[in-house]
Amino acid sequence: MEKKILLTDCPDDKGLIAKITNICYKHQLNITKNDEFVDRAQGRFFMRTALEGNFNDATLLEDLDMALPAGAERRLVASGRKRVVLMVTKEAHCLGDILMKCYSGALDVEIAAVVGNHNNLQSLVEKFEIPFHWLPAEGLAREQHEEQVMALVDSYQPDYLILAKYMRVLTPQFVAHYSKRIINIHHSFLPAFIGAKPYLQAFERGVKIIGATAHFVTDDLDEGPIIEQDVIKVDHGYSADDMAAAGRDVEKQVLSRALQLVLEERVFIHGNRTVVFK
Amino acid sequence: MEKKILLTDCPDDKGLIAKITNICYKHQLNITKNDEFVDRAQGRFFMRTALEGNFNDATLLEDLDMALPAGAERRLVASGRKRVVLMVTKEAHCLGDILMKCYSGALDVEIAAVVGNHNNLQSLVEKFEIPFHWLPAEGLAREQHEEQVMALVDSYQPDYLILAKYMRVLTPQFVAHYSKRIINIHHSFLPAFIGAKPYLQAFERGVKIIGATAHFVTDDLDEGPIIEQDVIKVDHGYSADDMAAAGRDVEKQVLSRALQLVLEERVFIHGNRTVVFK
Amino acid sequence: MEKKILLTDCPDDKGLIAKITNICYKHQLNITKNDEFVDRAQGRFFMRTALEGNFNDATLLEDLDMALPAGAERRLVASGRKRVVLMVTKEAHCLGDILMKCYSGALDVEIAAVVGNHNNLQSLVEKFEIPFHWLPAEGLAREQHEEQVMALVDSYQPDYLILAKYMRVLTPQFVAHYSKRIINIHHSFLPAFIGAKPYLQAFERGVKIIGATAHFVTDDLDEGPIIEQDVIKVDHGYSADDMAAAGRDVEKQVLSRALQLVLEERVFIHGNRTVVFK
Amino acid sequence: MEKKILLTDCPDDKGLIAKITNICYKHQLNITKNDEFVDRAQGRFFMRTALEGNFNDATLLEDLDMALPAGAERRLVASGRKRVVLMVTKEAHCLGDILMKCYSGALDVEIAAVVGNHNNLQSLVEKFEIPFHWLPAEGLAREQHEEQVMALVDSYQPDYLILAKYMRVLTPQFVAHYSKRIINIHHSFLPAFIGAKPYLQAFERGVKIIGATAHFVTDDLDEGPIIEQDVIKVDHGYSADDMAAAGRDVEKQVLSRALQLVLEERVFIHGNRTVVFK
Repeated sequence: MEKKILLTDCPDDKGLIAKITNICYKHQLNITKNDEFVDRAQGRFFMRTALEGNFNDATLLEDLDMALPAGAERRLVASGRKRVVLMVTKEAHCLGDILMKCYSGALDVEIAAVVGNHNNLQSLVEKFEIPFHWLPAEGLAREQHEEQVMALVDSYQPDYLILAKYMRVLTPQFVAHYSKRIINIHHSFLPAFIGAKPYLQAFERGVKIIGATAHFVTDDLDEGPIIEQDVIKVDHGYSADDMAAAGRDVEKQVLSRALQLVLEERVFIHGNRTVVFK
Repeated sequence: MEKKILLTDCPDDKGLIAKITNICYKHQLNITKNDEFVDRAQGRFFMRTALEGNFNDATLLEDLDMALPAGAERRLVASGRKRVVLMVTKEAHCLGDILMKCYSGALDVEIAAVVGNHNNLQSLVEKFEIPFHWLPAEGLAREQHEEQVMALVDSYQPDYLILAKYMRVLTPQFVAHYSKRIINIHHSFLPAFIGAKPYLQAFERGVKIIGATAHFVTDDLDEGPIIEQDVIKVDHGYSADDMAAAGRDVEKQVLSRALQLVLEERVFIHGNRTVVFK
Repeated sequence: MEKKILLTDCPDDKGLIAKITNICYKHQLNITKNDEFVDRAQGRFFMRTALEGNFNDATLLEDLDMALPAGAERRLVASGRKRVVLMVTKEAHCLGDILMKCYSGALDVEIAAVVGNHNNLQSLVEKFEIPFHWLPAEGLAREQHEEQVMALVDSYQPDYLILAKYMRVLTPQFVAHYSKRIINIHHSFLPAFIGAKPYLQAFERGVKIIGATAHFVTDDLDEGPIIEQDVIKVDHGYSADDMAAAGRDVEKQVLSRALQLVLEERVFIHGNRTVVFK
Repeated sequence: MEKKILLTDCPDDKGLIAKITNICYKHQLNITKNDEFVDRAQGRFFMRTALEGNFNDATLLEDLDMALPAGAERRLVASGRKRVVLMVTKEAHCLGDILMKCYSGALDVEIAAVVGNHNNLQSLVEKFEIPFHWLPAEGLAREQHEEQVMALVDSYQPDYLILAKYMRVLTPQFVAHYSKRIINIHHSFLPAFIGAKPYLQAFERGVKIIGATAHFVTDDLDEGPIIEQDVIKVDHGYSADDMAAAGRDVEKQVLSRALQLVLEERVFIHGNRTVVFK
């Protein structure tokens, strides 16, 4: 018996749940988990249906297309390992957490390769028998460097590109090339402390809580749809460096959780927001 | 247009979502929110369906009864204010939070009356023009006292009985009389510190976190189905009294949240556990 | 035996703890709790010393002044109830929480009066036998209205002014008049969503966590020293109104906790930040 | 300039802070951080003093011994890397988190060796060039196996022994051999779910929150002094296995934080409780 996930994202209409679940029932597919959400203000319907049974994908999708309103998007995704490429700079914590979770089986994903603009994480990556590519940016125009990165990344054909503390700003061309497939971890509780050195900003503002945000990358830096956020408490005794150290634990957790949500097909992008079925 | 909630709790079977949502669709009812859960180990299906439209209750339930498997329980609940009676002893914080939330409209419930085995909360209750009944237990056998309480409570015909820090143990007879309708707040993170003086127990054990638990009351003291729990951090600087003071904020929040979940028909009792659709 | 709190805030120097605690020891005062913090970057020392014994305030302070470096500020505060005036607009939750905590003894403060620019909270306040003053702002210049408020507030000689969801912007004149004595609750996790309608902003940005911030009020709106912050998780299912409703619980907790910290003399203002000894 | 930490644990008395800080001042040592706690019920005083300067350990301790009351314990600890041995069974997550934190520098400790009663974590440990010793317990009496373990562990002379999901019960002899130096992570929010299979117990009880507890190991299984605890929320949708998976993230965080607190000399054992200066 196979397992697949049906993802529906369409204009809201009466009877959508009935129509979709009926089609599944007629195909003798068992629904093991169903989640819906209606954005009533915008009139948009989202549904994630976890199915079990013997699938005839073509006729199932055909039946759905007949039933769904115009403007519907639907995907039937076979469960199975997805492939990602990680991009890093110098910090090990987010990379390390993902490597370890893959190693222990807590995260079910194939890390095809890791690309760094510095090479100090190479030995860590290679411990896990994963290719590491050092693509230094020094002396290159941003576009030149990104072309090299894109060529390399594309050679691995990843489902997603994970910026695990990749500290360079990406051009709109790069972002467009991997539209809706780049996940970034930002080291602040967005939208607080947009931009550079968020922990220093947080220290100077005297906040009592710091956080981290995992989001899809769009053209607007730090403005993409948020997938997951979390925070920890700090106090006056924390220097900016202490905040950064404390923040690393939150960053790695938030990125790993966001990645898992995306890998399990639990995340819809909905304009500049997300619908996340946990 | 009316709003009602359909609650289905039945043996699991193929096509249940399709069958139920189809019936709603045929009745031209719009599903504004749907939540399902299947306990696969026990083969039990739970669904909460928020509906909008013009209801013909009798034919809707008839159609459902034809479609659902044997052993199904289903309820169609008109949304609307429920009525509760609160039972208290001496502590004001849980009572006060519920009174204030009703006053401000944050909690949509009718507090028909408050019953206390002491009378020191009388003036607080009466500020809000709610009847307070003092039924002292001194000099009475437990059964005698409970008979008085039951007679009084029954006169108000409440949907639920809320033990807002009512510090007396109830007899099985009392519990049976309000089966599945009594909600208690226990001042510990159950099942830790069952029994008396949980904060003293917590202090002596040297825990770093304390909590509170809202649960339905069953014959087994502190063993009923848990609705909601929460915790706060403490440290070595907290005496048992400090823990109790800190715990009061958690207690009131947990009880208020549990009450709201129950009032909004989000809670199914499932053996000794609950299914809670948030 | 009396209890007092000694608060020292001075340029950092070697031996400060020894010097201060020695003086206390010579005065036969027992230190029941001591907290220090050194801001090494700015070379500033903060100490809160809870003392028990028989106090000779004049000689104690004299001894301290001899021992402390130039530029030291020190205060010896008798423990005892402080007096506050609350300012409100229409929302009951923060006001209600403080009223109830005073009633139950959880918060040890005298609420001298409540001032509202609307009158819909009058009956709530009067339930607790506290004077409510309605000072409508309609038809008045901001300065005129504030003059009325100041005259009234000053007649109560409060230690602190608590903005419990007072929804009007204050002039620099007003703020200066109560310098370092106004505490505000802002309904966002500052510095995110500065300005109007933070919950709407949060909804539109698609955040997964919302929060509240209690801070001292300074001329820069929403930029004063932060005392306390907390957050709760939300998801795509929350409308802006749902976020506001969920946020109310955080707002009231954060304001009550900040107020308690200030009343217990645990908060030093340190530039645009605070030092908070919990 | 050296940095050391002075730890004082003695019967409470007047003027202790003054006496100790005076001695430090006379030795021209700068106090960079000081924390005290008095357990007034038991009349016990605890102080952690972080010092900077040029140390004459012998005379400093001599001066302290003259000043402190009978029954005082004091230690002057040079800051510097401590050495630990980890003990594991089959689960990688706690081990992996500690390995990665050491690798990235987030945790400043020397992992002298890892001992496993199974060998499936050998390759992970050896990636980090740390010796792994497989000491299978099959066919051995508990005492025999422990003798082998003790001989091996002792050869490394560790400061602490970390049970990073070591799933065997230890004999009182073993525990006594490393008295107050064994740290364990228990996969529940102690004292809830003492004993075997805590996640299954948690599932069956229907709790809404699960947790983890790091504690010193004593003869009473799961009853030793608690160092750190944390929790996460779960709901009816979690099977016992889902709870275990969710719990792993909490376990590793709690163990890593407890280890860091111990390594930084922030933890006093106080009977069956701890005093932890964060």
